[in-house]
Amino acid sequence: MPLPAEFLDIAERVNNWGRWGEADEIGTLNLVTDEVVREAVAEARSGRRVPLALALKADGVQSGLIPGRVNPLHAMVQINQQLFGPDTVATSDDVVTLGLQSATHWDALTHASHSGRIYNGRSAGTITAHGGAGFSGIDKIPYVVSRGVLLDVAAAKGVDRLPGDHAITPEDLDEAAEFGRVTVRAGDIVLVRTGQVQVYLAGDRHGYGYPSPGLSVRTPQWFHAHDVAAVANDTLTFEIFPPEIENLWLPVHALDLVEMGMLQGQNWNLESLSTACGEAGRYAFLLAAMPEPFEGATGTPVAPVAVL
Amino acid sequence: MPLPAEFLDIAERVNNWGRWGEADEIGTLNLVTDEVVREAVAEARSGRRVPLALALKADGVQSGLIPGRVNPLHAMVQINQQLFGPDTVATSDDVVTLGLQSATHWDALTHASHSGRIYNGRSAGTITAHGGAGFSGIDKIPYVVSRGVLLDVAAAKGVDRLPGDHAITPEDLDEAAEFGRVTVRAGDIVLVRTGQVQVYLAGDRHGYGYPSPGLSVRTPQWFHAHDVAAVANDTLTFEIFPPEIENLWLPVHALDLVEMGMLQGQNWNLESLSTACGEAGRYAFLLAAMPEPFEGATGTPVAPVAVL
Amino acid sequence: MPLPAEFLDIAERVNNWGRWGEADEIGTLNLVTDEVVREAVAEARSGRRVPLALALKADGVQSGLIPGRVNPLHAMVQINQQLFGPDTVATSDDVVTLGLQSATHWDALTHASHSGRIYNGRSAGTITAHGGAGFSGIDKIPYVVSRGVLLDVAAAKGVDRLPGDHAITPEDLDEAAEFGRVTVRAGDIVLVRTGQVQVYLAGDRHGYGYPSPGLSVRTPQWFHAHDVAAVANDTLTFEIFPPEIENLWLPVHALDLVEMGMLQGQNWNLESLSTACGEAGRYAFLLAAMPEPFEGATGTPVAPVAVL
Amino acid sequence: MPLPAEFLDIAERVNNWGRWGEADEIGTLNLVTDEVVREAVAEARSGRRVPLALALKADGVQSGLIPGRVNPLHAMVQINQQLFGPDTVATSDDVVTLGLQSATHWDALTHASHSGRIYNGRSAGTITAHGGAGFSGIDKIPYVVSRGVLLDVAAAKGVDRLPGDHAITPEDLDEAAEFGRVTVRAGDIVLVRTGQVQVYLAGDRHGYGYPSPGLSVRTPQWFHAHDVAAVANDTLTFEIFPPEIENLWLPVHALDLVEMGMLQGQNWNLESLSTACGEAGRYAFLLAAMPEPFEGATGTPVAPVAVL
Repeated sequence: MPLPAEFLDIAERVNNWGRWGEADEIGTLNLVTDEVVREAVAEARSGRRVPLALALKADGVQSGLIPGRVNPLHAMVQINQQLFGPDTVATSDDVVTLGLQSATHWDALTHASHSGRIYNGRSAGTITAHGGAGFSGIDKIPYVVSRGVLLDVAAAKGVDRLPGDHAITPEDLDEAAEFGRVTVRAGDIVLVRTGQVQVYLAGDRHGYGYPSPGLSVRTPQWFHAHDVAAVANDTLTFEIFPPEIENLWLPVHALDLVEMGMLQGQNWNLESLSTACGEAGRYAFLLAAMPEPFEGATGTPVAPVAVL
Repeated sequence: MPLPAEFLDIAERVNNWGRWGEADEIGTLNLVTDEVVREAVAEARSGRRVPLALALKADGVQSGLIPGRVNPLHAMVQINQQLFGPDTVATSDDVVTLGLQSATHWDALTHASHSGRIYNGRSAGTITAHGGAGFSGIDKIPYVVSRGVLLDVAAAKGVDRLPGDHAITPEDLDEAAEFGRVTVRAGDIVLVRTGQVQVYLAGDRHGYGYPSPGLSVRTPQWFHAHDVAAVANDTLTFEIFPPEIENLWLPVHALDLVEMGMLQGQNWNLESLSTACGEAGRYAFLLAAMPEPFEGATGTPVAPVAVL
Repeated sequence: MPLPAEFLDIAERVNNWGRWGEADEIGTLNLVTDEVVREAVAEARSGRRVPLALALKADGVQSGLIPGRVNPLHAMVQINQQLFGPDTVATSDDVVTLGLQSATHWDALTHASHSGRIYNGRSAGTITAHGGAGFSGIDKIPYVVSRGVLLDVAAAKGVDRLPGDHAITPEDLDEAAEFGRVTVRAGDIVLVRTGQVQVYLAGDRHGYGYPSPGLSVRTPQWFHAHDVAAVANDTLTFEIFPPEIENLWLPVHALDLVEMGMLQGQNWNLESLSTACGEAGRYAFLLAAMPEPFEGATGTPVAPVAVL
Repeated sequence: MPLPAEFLDIAERVNNWGRWGEADEIGTLNLVTDEVVREAVAEARSGRRVPLALALKADGVQSGLIPGRVNPLHAMVQINQQLFGPDTVATSDDVVTLGLQSATHWDALTHASHSGRIYNGRSAGTITAHGGAGFSGIDKIPYVVSRGVLLDVAAAKGVDRLPGDHAITPEDLDEAAEFGRVTVRAGDIVLVRTGQVQVYLAGDRHGYGYPSPGLSVRTPQWFHAHDVAAVANDTLTFEIFPPEIENLWLPVHALDLVEMGMLQGQNWNLESLSTACGEAGRYAFLLAAMPEPFEGATGTPVAPVAVL
């Protein structure tokens, strides 16, 4: 059973392969120019900072459903160790093992493939156990700093959080933009709030992941039309889960990452940001969300910060 | 053999215990106010961004000398896996094991202890294998965004990099500030460039670590006098190594982290920043260097970005 | 609240500190002499081999209740990689992260401490993050080969498995020995079957761990009286859990490991062995259960084999 | 450049595909029957045990040359932790990350492939990041207990260790068998001693790996003719390295693992065994070398023990 025509039709419309040259590995992040950054900086008026990462810990959001995607395991290799002899200064060191997509993270463009292809038409076979992603690994992205825009879909609809079967549509995004009196522009990083992360924060890891509101297969066209640089939200799967179209799993991943070459973020905690934007009456801000440059990786934990 | 009087004397002068209350866990980062951030933002005039992290990879800066501090090990748990059946969208997932202090990193305030104490006078015994740092773990630091200042000591002295036995003094810092026509202010994050990271980038991991130029035991007083919020540099050990005073190992760690409660960063790649600041004729910028919030950790990889 | 008199009284009776000298680190394994091994070999009459380890995998017996004790995480670093060029022989390599006590394992004698002491009266402070166990680490045990004896308590009582609140007593052990027509001798390794592992094998990881039948606080005296070299069983906690005496947690660990210096094994799969012994009508066999010599470790996965 | 005719010719002669049925995943281990085990047991006359594993530790045999094959990293997650409250029994727990082929190990039959095939003619594509080896993973091998035979090539030649360019030939194996007055039989596990591990034990990890004596491409026919069940030796690469035939890398791996389906072991410490066999005047013994059953793994650490 090949991918359905409905999907392939959208894929064709949002495709960015070749748009920034054959050699390109970073996709829509090309849209973040120095000028965009200058405008982003201008949004940081109050100096108020809001962190957007969940704590990295053993009882993180992963429930074991995605094989191998393990929550961070923290262990000590030195505790107050006087490496150079007694009566000297002591140090403590730790190590960690984690799934790169296990917590608040960015998917690299290579995280998804379909029909044997990754972003810019390259072969999915360029991902190997030896070295990971040959192209478009997360280490190829030097920085993610731009104007951030919060599209607070839950707040715009007057609810704490969207129900588990709510697929966020382009109309919902327009409504949230209007609610925030903000215009999404080329190079923006859009944060879409569902409120779903509250379920995890309340202790229900399973309920957080499934069922979950998330982006509809119709939203990639909206992001494409607005020339958005990256999108993140506060859910485990990013897109509505289970999916809208029977047996079409992860279509938004394929459209955003493979076709458009647009970075996707998941498990972002947008609760405090919602409050801060509401208090400020402004839904645009400076956003820094730097990938950790793991060589060849298909994802990375990220500790984003919004400056209002 | 107790710590020498010379050390204890400086310790007393730079001590910040109780300055921000008994409950404080973040030390000099308290100096970064909204106003400081507004001033920091004002430095980001051109929109030019400069990343400061080294690649996270198996042949990173660690040479095996520090027990347990391992370079990142990257491995795949999914490669183009069609989790939901054939002919669907596929995903790739990876896991990593790394020493939290192995690459470009921040030391948490708990990374060092002396005489049984950590920052703010707490017992070093509050660090355990079960949960890590009970106080002042890296997850307690919500954000690191401030004005960054590059003190390009190597450039100020007209050399590519400082010799391995050069202990950077307060006078060197003043000279570099003058060279950059910049005044260090309360809440600034100071980046001190030695050029030493070139040794690693040229392929000599052992030569990078030892011998290495670095900060003198006299610098903590300078940082204290200027009310600096954090300091990072481009060496493995931060301070001059081997140390200036025989058998007094890691005194700067003890003074900065334990006594002052000032965040320290190591293995930052300041080469491109040196070029960019030189070209711009400006050595102050907006700096975002967010810790990954590993719960109870005594350090964190960091992917800093300077916006000029 | 110190440890109760009841515990301290047994502790005194079973204590082996100094029995094999002050320098000893292996405890009751000293009882396995060449002669014992020759007798053990004589039990291997049919050549039938029975493996006793559970599969090492992500959905192993750990349910997350014991902090940091993670099931094995398997990941690939090479898949059919032609390291030396195209058209050559290819190889695959994998890495694993696991809790050393997470699966079928031996506890090292250092795994437990009480009142600040480990086996042979050494300070518990000799266990550090830097290097692990200074004494009695699992790597100190060169081999575990001896006569194995299955005490099939469940079979002796005519049940598939013991109920969750059944504390196995010395009388139960005698009954099982009689059932198997076997006499426990000095240097034997005793395997005690409860049948509890069936709960895990049936898919109920939580029910496997709690509540669980296991050894009573009265059994260490029995093991001591018989000069047993090591004991293993088919439960998560080894001893009855929750414990028999309120607020006295893990007393059997303390008596076996700390006081006697007797190796303990957990999560052994004794189901096939029960069948094999029943069919053979013999409950003694040659047992090889070699620790993996992880330096300084307080436990090890083990893949035991019985030869009947 | 395809594999040379010389290789393909040998491959055809030693091929065992289909010999134990299409469904077979364990190859020559089928040769270890109950009868073979009974004969093996009969060799354990004195009860003397000799362990054959190197310590598992951070400064193990890996030097970083094989990407991703990391030495064991040991870290603590509990140190004397009183999980159930103060004044109770305390426990210590550790975790480890290691390359499954990093230390004294068995290669699974899937560890090597050539021309797209693994043992028994299956597709090499059955090895994936998701689940590892679909066939012939190390967990498929329930036990490795048989008669062990030491072919002490170094001792037979009257040298401490073979020179780095010595390719061990069938004639060398015959000479060593004669030296040990032992006849290799069907189902035996043959241990071939070069003495090379002394280089590692003396602290020279690089010299240990390269150049290294090892088995010649001519030996698989000898093993095949004798119906050997498994072979291990005391080198990093098992076969002579660099290889005998230019640009033909790892031919012995391909012949043993892929064509014959014969388990291979590396980094075994045969020094004490050489002494013990010399003292006993007997070079056959009972050998237990149980794989840790890592699910889907292409190798496993092993702690073998010989009983003379």
